[in-house]
Order: sequence, then C-alpha cells, then structure tokens
Amino acid sequence: MYTLGIDIGGTKIAGAVCDENDTIVSQWRVPTPTEPEEINDCIVEIYEEATKLHPEIPYIGISAAGNVKADRRTMSFSANIAKWIDYPLADRIEELLQGRAKVVVENDANCAGWGEYILGAGKGSKNMVMLTVGTGLGGAIVINGELYRGSFGMAAELGHLPMVSDGDFCGCGLRGCAERYTSGSALENFARAGMRRMPQKATRLLELCGGDVNALEGKMVSQAAAEGDELALYAFGKIGEWLGRTMAAIAAVLDPDVFVIGGGVVSVGNILLDPARYNYQRFLQASAYREHAQILPATAGGDAGMIGAADLARKELSKEQA
Amino acid sequence: MYTLGIDIGGTKIAGAVCDENDTIVSQWRVPTPTEPEEINDCIVEIYEEATKLHPEIPYIGISAAGNVKADRRTMSFSANIAKWIDYPLADRIEELLQGRAKVVVENDANCAGWGEYILGAGKGSKNMVMLTVGTGLGGAIVINGELYRGSFGMAAELGHLPMVSDGDFCGCGLRGCAERYTSGSALENFARAGMRRMPQKATRLLELCGGDVNALEGKMVSQAAAEGDELALYAFGKIGEWLGRTMAAIAAVLDPDVFVIGGGVVSVGNILLDPARYNYQRFLQASAYREHAQILPATAGGDAGMIGAADLARKELSKEQA
Amino acid sequence: MYTLGIDIGGTKIAGAVCDENDTIVSQWRVPTPTEPEEINDCIVEIYEEATKLHPEIPYIGISAAGNVKADRRTMSFSANIAKWIDYPLADRIEELLQGRAKVVVENDANCAGWGEYILGAGKGSKNMVMLTVGTGLGGAIVINGELYRGSFGMAAELGHLPMVSDGDFCGCGLRGCAERYTSGSALENFARAGMRRMPQKATRLLELCGGDVNALEGKMVSQAAAEGDELALYAFGKIGEWLGRTMAAIAAVLDPDVFVIGGGVVSVGNILLDPARYNYQRFLQASAYREHAQILPATAGGDAGMIGAADLARKELSKEQA
Amino acid sequence: MYTLGIDIGGTKIAGAVCDENDTIVSQWRVPTPTEPEEINDCIVEIYEEATKLHPEIPYIGISAAGNVKADRRTMSFSANIAKWIDYPLADRIEELLQGRAKVVVENDANCAGWGEYILGAGKGSKNMVMLTVGTGLGGAIVINGELYRGSFGMAAELGHLPMVSDGDFCGCGLRGCAERYTSGSALENFARAGMRRMPQKATRLLELCGGDVNALEGKMVSQAAAEGDELALYAFGKIGEWLGRTMAAIAAVLDPDVFVIGGGVVSVGNILLDPARYNYQRFLQASAYREHAQILPATAGGDAGMIGAADLARKELSKEQA
Repeated sequence: MYTLGIDIGGTKIAGAVCDENDTIVSQWRVPTPTEPEEINDCIVEIYEEATKLHPEIPYIGISAAGNVKADRRTMSFSANIAKWIDYPLADRIEELLQGRAKVVVENDANCAGWGEYILGAGKGSKNMVMLTVGTGLGGAIVINGELYRGSFGMAAELGHLPMVSDGDFCGCGLRGCAERYTSGSALENFARAGMRRMPQKATRLLELCGGDVNALEGKMVSQAAAEGDELALYAFGKIGEWLGRTMAAIAAVLDPDVFVIGGGVVSVGNILLDPARYNYQRFLQASAYREHAQILPATAGGDAGMIGAADLARKELSKEQA
Repeated sequence: MYTLGIDIGGTKIAGAVCDENDTIVSQWRVPTPTEPEEINDCIVEIYEEATKLHPEIPYIGISAAGNVKADRRTMSFSANIAKWIDYPLADRIEELLQGRAKVVVENDANCAGWGEYILGAGKGSKNMVMLTVGTGLGGAIVINGELYRGSFGMAAELGHLPMVSDGDFCGCGLRGCAERYTSGSALENFARAGMRRMPQKATRLLELCGGDVNALEGKMVSQAAAEGDELALYAFGKIGEWLGRTMAAIAAVLDPDVFVIGGGVVSVGNILLDPARYNYQRFLQASAYREHAQILPATAGGDAGMIGAADLARKELSKEQA
Repeated sequence: MYTLGIDIGGTKIAGAVCDENDTIVSQWRVPTPTEPEEINDCIVEIYEEATKLHPEIPYIGISAAGNVKADRRTMSFSANIAKWIDYPLADRIEELLQGRAKVVVENDANCAGWGEYILGAGKGSKNMVMLTVGTGLGGAIVINGELYRGSFGMAAELGHLPMVSDGDFCGCGLRGCAERYTSGSALENFARAGMRRMPQKATRLLELCGGDVNALEGKMVSQAAAEGDELALYAFGKIGEWLGRTMAAIAAVLDPDVFVIGGGVVSVGNILLDPARYNYQRFLQASAYREHAQILPATAGGDAGMIGAADLARKELSKEQA
Repeated sequence: MYTLGIDIGGTKIAGAVCDENDTIVSQWRVPTPTEPEEINDCIVEIYEEATKLHPEIPYIGISAAGNVKADRRTMSFSANIAKWIDYPLADRIEELLQGRAKVVVENDANCAGWGEYILGAGKGSKNMVMLTVGTGLGGAIVINGELYRGSFGMAAELGHLPMVSDGDFCGCGLRGCAERYTSGSALENFARAGMRRMPQKATRLLELCGGDVNALEGKMVSQAAAEGDELALYAFGKIGEWLGRTMAAIAAVLDPDVFVIGGGVVSVGNILLDPARYNYQRFLQASAYREHAQILPATAGGDAGMIGAADLARKELSKEQA
C-alpha cells in the first residue's frame, strides 16, 4: 500500500509516492499557483499521475505552510496563500477525488520535524524538538514517539516564543518573538546592523550586495561566512546566540533529549551550531545540575517534509480504519 | 489496596493513606526536621502508623520541593533541604522499610498538578498546564492524561521561562525568569515599588507592615487587596499581567486547553485571574485566529499534592509489576 | 541688518530673510535636488534673490537633516543626501558667494528647538528639551539660554537613547533606540500590530489604507484617531507611552523645566500628549519627591527651524566678529 | 580667605579647610551620628575648631548623599539619614553659627565630580561626565566649566537611567535602572549568579565568602579579580559592559569629551575600564562616524568631594556677594 505525500511550498508543489517504509518510489514537482482552486487541481493531477503507476493510494498527506486546525483538514490561516482563511483543504481534495483517497493536512514545520524523527537526526529520541531556521522560525515537537499538536492544533509555534519584553516588532503583531532574533530575516538584520556600525569590516558584504545594504540577502551572508568574513560570522554568531537562548527557553518547558536544527540557514553547519550550543548551556536553567539535550543538524534532506506528511497520514488514517 | 502519599513541605511533613479512588482514609502531620536522616525517620514512622490501620500499603509516593532525577527516586537538588544533593531518597526509605514498600519520588509542583488533573480543575482536560503561584512559580504539565516529565526529569520548570532579556536577577543565576515577575516574591516587589513611588497611596500597606516597607509580606498585600486598597490591587494587577504573559509563552509551545492556577497567592481569586486572563489574550500569538485555553483556579485543595503523589506512585508501580 | 535662514528639507528648500527680531521679511521655496552641487546652487540663488530686496545680508544659517561636525560647517553624515559624507557645506557656499556672506550649519532638530526657545513654547525656560516626533525622533537641548551641542557636535541625539535591551532593530545599527518606539514609523508599527491582532477593530484603518496593512501611513492613523477610532487611539497611546518614558530617561540626565514636543505627529495634540504626560510621571525617578517639567506642544510653527537657523548664525557670527 | 568643606558620609563626617587654590590646610574627621541635630552639632564643632586655626572662614560647602533642592540649602530626601525629608540643612547650620558663615549644600556625587573637574582627571575638559561606581551609581555633569544641576536640582541622576524595559527591580521603585547593572551591588549580583551557575569555577569566591554565596561582598570579588580568578573577572566584565552601555546612553544626550569613572569599585582599574571602553564604542550611536570621549579613572583621591564642596561654595557665595 502506498501513500502520497504533498508539500505545498512557496514556489513549488512537490509530490511523492511513499511505501510503508517511508521510501519514495516516484515523485513530481510543479510550480505553485496562487489560487486555492488551482492548487487543488495540481494536487489532483499529481494524484492521477501517481495512481497510473501505483493504482492503490488510499491516503494523501499534505504539508502546508500556515495554521492547520485541530481537525487536521482545514487551513485557518496562511501567510503564503491569502485565501486560505478557514479553508477546508482536505474536504475539497476528497470531493475532487470522489472518495478515492482520504486526506490529512499538517503544518509544514510539523511535517519536517516528523520526517527528522522517523528518518533523520531525531531517530530514536524520546522527546524531540525541531527548529526550522528559514525565513522565519518553525517548530515541531515529538513526545513519546508522537507528533505533539496541542489541544487546538497550535502547539510548537516556537518562532513566536516571547524572548524580549518590548522587543523587535514581529509580523504576527507581537514584539520580541524568537523568530525576530533567530531566522533568515534576523540574519539579514544583524548583518545590516553590523555593516552600518562597522563600515571598515563591511567590504565583502557590500561587494556581494552591490553596495546597497538594503539589498543584502541571507544567502550572501552565508557565502561570506563560509569564506571566513568577520562581519558575516558576527551575524551568524548573533542568530546562533538567540537560537541557543530560544532552545534554553523551550527546555524549561519540555526538557527534550534532542534538538534538531533544520532549514536553509543551517547549511553553514557549526558556524551556526557552535554559538547555539554555547549559549544554550549559558542560558539553560540549572545548567550545571542536569543532563543536557543533544543539538543536532537535520539530516533527512529536503524531502523530509513530504515523506513526513505521507507517514503522518498513513498512521492517522490506518488507525482510524482499524 | 492502599497507597501512602507523603508531602515534605518547608514546615511540615504530611502523610495520607489513599484508596484506589484517591480518597484519603487516614492522615498524619509532623514538623519537618532539617536533616535528611530525620526526614526519613519521620516518613518511616508515618508508614508504621499507617500500616497499623491498613496493613497492606505496598506503595509510597513522595512529593518533594526540588529537582527529582529522571529515575523518580533521587533528589538532585533542593532549595529547602541543603543536603539533598544527588540524594537517593527512595533507596533510603526502601532500605529502612526492608522491602515492605516501593517508593516513587516526584517534584511537588508536579504532584499538585497531577492532583488537580485527577480531582480538581483540570479533570477531563486533554492537555493541562498548572502554575503554582507560591513564593516562587512552579509548573506541571499533563499531556494526553499523563504527567509530562521530560527526558531528564526537568520538564515544566515554568517559573524559569525567560520573559525579559537582561531582566530581574533570579536566584537560579539567570535574569528575567517568569517567577521574578509572577510569584509571591514578585507581589512583594511590585507592592514595595508602588509604595516607594506613590507614597500618597501607601497608607494602608504601610499600616499593615508597621511602617517598614522592607517588612511587607505577600499576605498583607492580599489582605489589603481584598479590602479594595488601590496600591495592593496595582501589585496584583502587575503579577496578573505577567502571569498572563507567561501563559501566552507556554501556549506557544504547548497550546493546552486548560491552565490551572494554584498556590497561596491565588486565594484572592479574580483579583489575580482577571488581569491574567486579559493579558493572556493580549500577548497570545494569533489571538484572534485560534481557540483559547480556559484559565481556572485550582479546586482540589491543600491535600492535592499528597493525593497526587500517592496516585502517581500507584500507577507507576502497578504498571511495573504488571 | 538681515540674516538668511535656509531649511534644507527632504522635499523642499526654504529660505527666509529675518530681521534682528527674528521676524521673516521675505521668503522663498524650491524643490530639493539630489546632488550636493545642485543644493548649493539653490542656496546661492535664494541668496541672490534675497540681496536684491535686502542688499546687506552678511550671515546665512542653514538647517540640515543629518550630523553636523563641531565646526558647525561640515556635514559628517545625512540619511537624506547620500553624498554628504564629511561634506564641507559652509565652505562651498562661502566660496560660491565669494565672501559676501558667512555661513553656519546646524542640525535641523537643533534649529527647530532653538526656534521654539526664542519664539515658541520654550520661551523663558531655564533648561529646555525639544523632541521632534517626525518620521524619526529628533532632539534639541537648550541650557541656560544656549543651544547645547556637546563636545563634538553630537549632543541631543535623543532618538537614539537606548530604551529596550535587545529591542527593535534601528536604522542606525543598534537595537531598542527611542525612535523605534516613539515616532511616525513607530506609530505605523503599533497600528499595524493592532490591525493584525485585533482584526475586529481594524475596519476604519483598513478602509483608509485600502485593505493593505503594509500600505498604512501615519497620517491615516492621525485621521482615524481624530475621528475617535479605537485602534488608532491605541497606537497613539503606545507612542505616547514611550514618549513619556523617553522624557523620563532624559530627565534623569538633564532635569529640564520644559519639554517641547514638535513634529508632524504632534498635530493630534492631547491624543499624544496625555499618554506622554501620564507615563512621564509614571516612569520618572523619584516622581513624588521632585518638581516636574512642563510638557508643551510646539507653538512656533513650521518656519521655526529656518528662523532658528538664522538666529543661531547671527548670534554665532556677530559674537565672532565682536 | 578660607572655605570649610564638609563631607557627610555614611560612617564619618570629614571636614577640611581649603585655601583659594583648593589646597587643604587642616582637616578633621568624626563618626557620623544618626540624628540631624547631632550632625549639625558635629559640623558646628568642626567649624569652631577650624576658626581657631583660621579665624576667617566665611563659607561652608557641604557634600551630602541624597537629593538637594534647587536652592542648594535643603535636603529633600536621603537614603542614609531618614529624617532628612525637606530638611533645611543650610538654615540650621547658619542659625547655629549665628551668621558667622554662609552654607551651600551639594549632592555628594556632584561634589566628587566637581573635585575631579578642578583637580583630577576631568581638568581641562569642555563637557565632563563623572560616574561614581559605589554601592549604587552616582553621576555628575560639568558643562562649559560649570556644574550642571538642572532646573530643579535633580540633574545627573545617572544611576537611574532606564537601561532595560521591565528590568531588575530598583530601590527607587522603578525597574531596569543603570545602577542595577553597574555598581557594587550589581557586581555582587553578577558574581553570585556566576557562582550558582558555574559551581566548578566558584572555588576561590566560595573560599572568600566562607561558603555562603549570600555573604559575598564586592571587595571579595575585587580581591579575587586582582588574583586573576575567572569568575570574578566575569562579574567585572558584566558591570563593565553595562558601564559602557550606560555611558553610550549618556553620550546620546550630552556627547561629552571626558568620562571620569570613580568610586570604590574602580580600584581594580582596567579590569573594569577595559570592558567599559569596549562596550562604549560597541553601543555608541554612529560609533564609526564621530569623535569619541575619553574614559578615564578618577585621580583626585578620596578628599575630592570635600574639596569640591568647598570650591563650589566659595564660587557660589563670592559671586552672590559681588
């Protein structure tokens, strides 16, 4: 029996047929349209293609950026797809497929976290927390071998942990959220701040952004850091510091044994993880009197979210039917 | 079959024999001695008395203030009992009882939280968080009907959630911990601050503390607040604000359906809970787009911790034996 | 004898011939060009026009946005005119005029503050602080009847007082500067935050910004506030709170008898000043045991900066010649 | 003509007869009594002794810890002498002396600052700020060769600059005041925090405080730091960091050319000043585009306050009589 995993990203929709061992047997990729109906059509099309190769695909797991209701079927809000407000995504797909498959929808950070738990760095952990350091900061929590979703589907919004009273304005309308200090956007902010204050050290970054500080992008900071540029390393040091502080805050609640750090920004490896580890122990309550969690880079790769979505759907739906 | 619940408090050790419905059938109370050996002797003595009335008591659950190791048998640290550093409390009691009973040790805030879950305001909740507002701020987490202890026994140290970067110095050696802003100590600090800055409103509180601001105690603030004193209400408003902010931070991780607020300070009721509820929604991420947890006062009473300890021990040990 | 006052603004250059009583006798206005040389030409042109009417104009006072060196002749940096880096503005103008007039350059917030001191709300004060709440937050200090410029010309950068440790990222490269919390930009940030968190109250502001939160401008918030809109009043309440807190911080250093609040944002009057006054006394050290400064709206009008520049130049240069 | 300088300290009252070159020609020292009348008697007694040696002493300058009114004659409040609430100190002394001398009262940090300006590290500066790092943090400002007192006598309360929103509770009733982060008390707090969190590095400090963290005193930290103890150096590094940050905040207002650092804590020299200088430039607005103030240790010695008081009185009173 196969399951179709779908990952609706900002630029592409990816789909993969996974077997019961979470191995991908076929996959597809199409650009992401902007209208919900067009997105639904893409998903249905991938399903049709998939069933040509693997006739029996009773379950579809969808990974989507945004808030998913506790029913795991409805998008309550998404920063990417404006019309996904209380949108019954699973209902729509099931209707279009006329009952040929059942659908489970899950938040993308949760799918990525689950992927790491079943296939990657979190494998074998007891209680795992994943932080996805992308444009923002996503979170996922696995407790005793199960994805933890909270009572209303809103758990693990770790990017919105309040870290600074009256801190940086966040897009969510609050101030001081963790993702304002540790994320790709934060990396750009810290790098720009450094360029403004330490012009004598900004040569390489100015070169990369064509002389316009506001045009600086995270990937330029990553490149410069890989070359050993001092200012780029400073910026990574700062988001690393706050990543450590955020994990210390999470540990006060969850005391996990493993933190997995994923997302595009973590490609620099220890340039980010070293300051994160150092500041984790520096800000961890009772640091000297407890066992410490491991802090590991994600290893399951870019398809982890899609595979995670498929696995979650199969587990959820086969349990229902049993 | 009966279980003995023991609550080692700062001033008294209480013991209660509980039946399988968590009903107390007999209880004892003695002053808390300072030496670990003397504490052990007290517990053994209560056990001997208890078994005179109820011969078969195979399990003892102990509630203790401090950090308990993941083995649920060893005190790694306690602010009250200085010599409890890596102290094998369960081993010692079992030795003294020569195998007549098995012992489980649990943190006191966890026991109180479990008591509220099985008997009090948290009954029937899916995911519950309890905050005990005493001298400090204790926490307990119940997930899917089980007390959540984390991977190393240090979960739910909610009083040490970092709320303010570079904030108030905490006894734990960090700065800005939640319990510096919402606890009995914080109540005194906010009240004293108000007395210093608003002397024209300090008449009643000055009267209660005999004119010495530094001699002000939390219970005086509670009394004045109950009388409607403006400055006392201000102080409760501040710790209520921070209680709300702390719960909002916890919701970003756990998204529970119930918060239970216990501890001595909550005796003022809505004087504390109203500002807590107001600020919870004010600081909750995506407040307008989600379901909100209930915020309820504890109802299980002062024996909840002891009963909780007994219940946890019985569940844990009967599972082991099965 | 007459003095020419020049105000180089973001969109226009204004010039006024002032007599020795600081009365404007003639004035001109042209769009601001982008190149330093073009700006110089505009100023020279205004001077030529002015001397046709008033042949003897030996002094020119220039008000310019940016940092002016202690020599009061050189622009060290300006956010508006990119090429003003260590730019000898007074030298250039004097060269072009071939010695017919002497030039003094002064920071625009300083000129506005001096204008309020000689003609407006600060008249008769002993020690005055002016805060100009525009896009950013400008400052000016008058001590014992003299504009205070500091040892290196950088005094009164009050918009960059650090108010929040690890606070909002500022364009200057620091975090938590006062102008991130009290300024036109801050007004927009607080209003947008409110719209995101309290959509049920955002109707009027959404109408004004055409449904696009990011398109919201300060003047829309001012308009809605004047109409009594709750969310707009909330946003003014927040920047008013921080204006009060910033003044309290300044009072810890300077203990002035008058604060004058100017800039476009203050046009709403007590909607801004009431929360500012309330929070000033709330955050002022030893509030109950000291005399309090008056907090007054600016009254000298939009030409105050130009007149201030002329007056400063006349005083400075006539002193030199004496 | 001579002037008598009096320094009313927490434990002793010191008096010195100074000539017009600010040289001490005779001095006395007695323990500080607790009652205002007894203090007055001590001062009169010193005056009587002084006039036996130097018959003509028409002026007395008194340095006192606490807030002095703008009249420079009345103590409005003092943390040391509880009964000095709106206490007419100069009136009382003049009455007791039956008009033989006129009295000027000045805040002790101001006197110390003035002493440094006329005799010590601030000599020749244009605008000087002195920070006295004692139990708390005192401030003094000299502008254009005159002590700056503000409009109501409350200027230069630099220890109460707000540095952290919602920060550490201050004895003044506010939170986050500079003196909570840079002072002798702060040194103890940072050292204790370090001892709690890094027990493996606490050996030397524990030895010095007899094993009781709460008994740790600032001078023990100074001693250990002088020996090179890592934890003591960490604590100095932290108060040095905040000293630098506080000076950067002051520079945004005053842009002085010299900061003088005095008080008992500065005896460790560069152990404090190095981190202060480093963080000053790190947190100074437009750091790369401006001239920087010098940061110098005080050099005028322990009598500077007394001499400063005498000098201020002579200047003030001889001006009045002229």
